[in-house]
Amino acid sequence: MTERIYFDWNATARLRPEARQAVLDAMALAGNPSSVHAEGRAARRLIEGAREQVAALVSARPADVFFTSGGTEANALALSPAIETAGEKRPREALLISAIEHPSVRAGGRFPGEKITEIPVDADGRLDLAALADAIAKAARPLVSLMLANNETGVVQPVAQAAAIVHAAGGLLHVDAVQGAGRIPCEIGVLGADLLTLAAHKIGGPKGVGALIRRSEDIHLAAPLVRGGGQERGLRPGTENVAGIAGFGAAAAAASSKRAEEAARMLALRNLLEDGLRAVAPQTVIFGAGAVRLPNTTLFSLEGLKAETAVIAFDLEGVALSSGAACSSGKVQPSHVLAAMGVLPPLQRGALRVSLGWETTEAEIERFLGAWRKVSTALSNGSKDQRGMAA
Amino acid sequence: MTERIYFDWNATARLRPEARQAVLDAMALAGNPSSVHAEGRAARRLIEGAREQVAALVSARPADVFFTSGGTEANALALSPAIETAGEKRPREALLISAIEHPSVRAGGRFPGEKITEIPVDADGRLDLAALADAIAKAARPLVSLMLANNETGVVQPVAQAAAIVHAAGGLLHVDAVQGAGRIPCEIGVLGADLLTLAAHKIGGPKGVGALIRRSEDIHLAAPLVRGGGQERGLRPGTENVAGIAGFGAAAAAASSKRAEEAARMLALRNLLEDGLRAVAPQTVIFGAGAVRLPNTTLFSLEGLKAETAVIAFDLEGVALSSGAACSSGKVQPSHVLAAMGVLPPLQRGALRVSLGWETTEAEIERFLGAWRKVSTALSNGSKDQRGMAA
Repeated sequence: MTERIYFDWNATARLRPEARQAVLDAMALAGNPSSVHAEGRAARRLIEGAREQVAALVSARPADVFFTSGGTEANALALSPAIETAGEKRPREALLISAIEHPSVRAGGRFPGEKITEIPVDADGRLDLAALADAIAKAARPLVSLMLANNETGVVQPVAQAAAIVHAAGGLLHVDAVQGAGRIPCEIGVLGADLLTLAAHKIGGPKGVGALIRRSEDIHLAAPLVRGGGQERGLRPGTENVAGIAGFGAAAAAASSKRAEEAARMLALRNLLEDGLRAVAPQTVIFGAGAVRLPNTTLFSLEGLKAETAVIAFDLEGVALSSGAACSSGKVQPSHVLAAMGVLPPLQRGALRVSLGWETTEAEIERFLGAWRKVSTALSNGSKDQRGMAA
Repeated sequence: MTERIYFDWNATARLRPEARQAVLDAMALAGNPSSVHAEGRAARRLIEGAREQVAALVSARPADVFFTSGGTEANALALSPAIETAGEKRPREALLISAIEHPSVRAGGRFPGEKITEIPVDADGRLDLAALADAIAKAARPLVSLMLANNETGVVQPVAQAAAIVHAAGGLLHVDAVQGAGRIPCEIGVLGADLLTLAAHKIGGPKGVGALIRRSEDIHLAAPLVRGGGQERGLRPGTENVAGIAGFGAAAAAASSKRAEEAARMLALRNLLEDGLRAVAPQTVIFGAGAVRLPNTTLFSLEGLKAETAVIAFDLEGVALSSGAACSSGKVQPSHVLAAMGVLPPLQRGALRVSLGWETTEAEIERFLGAWRKVSTALSNGSKDQRGMAA
């Protein structure tokens, strides 16, 4: 049997060998990190070592890293009116988000729906900075939440420019860096983020662990989601996911040291892929192609294609890819990202995402293009074939 | 060097080999459980298999198991006024808890402080059922939260009797079974629990994963802590901790099949331990000795002993034990459990917890008693020696 081709790294990356080893080593230790005996102190050391590694990935101080159970929880923790700064203790009155955020940001955390404003994006899926400036002028003590790079299109957002606008208006900026970290530079200070979210499993760490990172101790999250213990300095009580955190740290260190090299490799492969997509089917549309994108992500479509059917056809050809985000069980619904970009339904329906990783090879790209030849021919030529495949 | 003796299984258990293997196997899979391709479906199968194993541990239906990041989060999720039943959609107006609950329950979840009532315990640390009946008569649509067994004393609580009282008053019962599960029978129906909390790492699974389990689909948690995705049927969004959940399932299966045998072994060793404690220092007080206790837990004290100092002395002798709960970093404060039992400060201060596990051996008990001989002689004979040790 031929090896499967895993082209869904944005849904979840393969575990890095360094992370796997760190998890293994951590599992060999007994000990609750809150215990004072040798076993407890050893578990504590693992966590604090990982905190340094994760902090280094975004050039933050370890003391500003708070581990959570993942990106979704970190986003929920960040999106609270009760964020205090040295200069401002009053609650945040408004939440501004882009129209292409992850569902965990679109849910708005602890802001009621009427306090949430969506900022549009352009046809390439980039935040509209003028619209942000307009909206923020009308908001009192706003919190703004923007992603570093979109999970579906890979389009990198103008976060630093947005930060300047947000801060000039007395606002705070939260950056969901889940898809960008490890793939493009992600320094919290350079981005101008006051708060920043990471998820381990997108950078090659284990699923079930993430972090919320603050710019400095000047940022105070006054309303934890969960209370009852002192872990993570009271912000995130509960016995720590020691092995997961250790794996996160190792993945962060590897992602950090290998980023430039991996990004260059993925970009070359991605270009090969996109040239091939168009060579096979010249009508192929690549979304966000006019914007700066992550080096590993291609979202594309072909009129007549039905994404759900195509994903299954590719799966049968041995290729794992996605019809967009993989954020919740079995949901098939139109992409809010493509809708925000003004993509019309016939193209929206066929959108397929290929996301590469550090293990992707040129041979896999070639094999994928062979599958694309079959799938695009079989599925885009009229509704009869599609009905046949979907049955 | 002599092997260390790990006697702090209530803080966290050693990972069971079955759980370790399940984590390893899960880590070998790529795939987000929400993805429809083969890799995603394989991850989904692991989670659903683990759900069956965890459900079986408490004789629940798999569909009533919701995975969380641990016991603390499961408790926080449970303790919400917004629990609906088929017959009652209005919010719960009061939260009743025992005076010996875990800090994550004492924090009261999403109930404001003024709606929380503490029910006293007797001198052996058992819930006062008459006091519960009195308090519940004054409460409108109460939620009651009780632990199955106390983490410090091991005292098993009269949960089934409490359930009858709670249900007769139209209340709902949440049971924090974190310390009891896997050590004593823990069937959700027999206990009469409407909601039940488990933590993987107390039964030999990984840290960072737990579950909230409901009696039936009649119980509806209307206010998730985190929103934004469909995972865990919308109650707990975010990419699942696949490896952690797989480890939890394996630990639950092992704990379930070995429970009777492990409990009998631990009880015999515990009796040996307690006889030895008293033989060495006849003034030793064993807390909760008049009540039914978990087979693995002994909380004891000796007047003149200072627990923090004794824990360090034992650590130097190669024994990991605890001065009580290990719930938050570096906190040294008097036990609310012993205070609720009416234990006076001189004895409270010296309280040490030994908690055994399935790997505990008779030889370890013997070696521990040797250490107890040294520590109790050195530390309980006046303040001069204690100052010396603490310096």
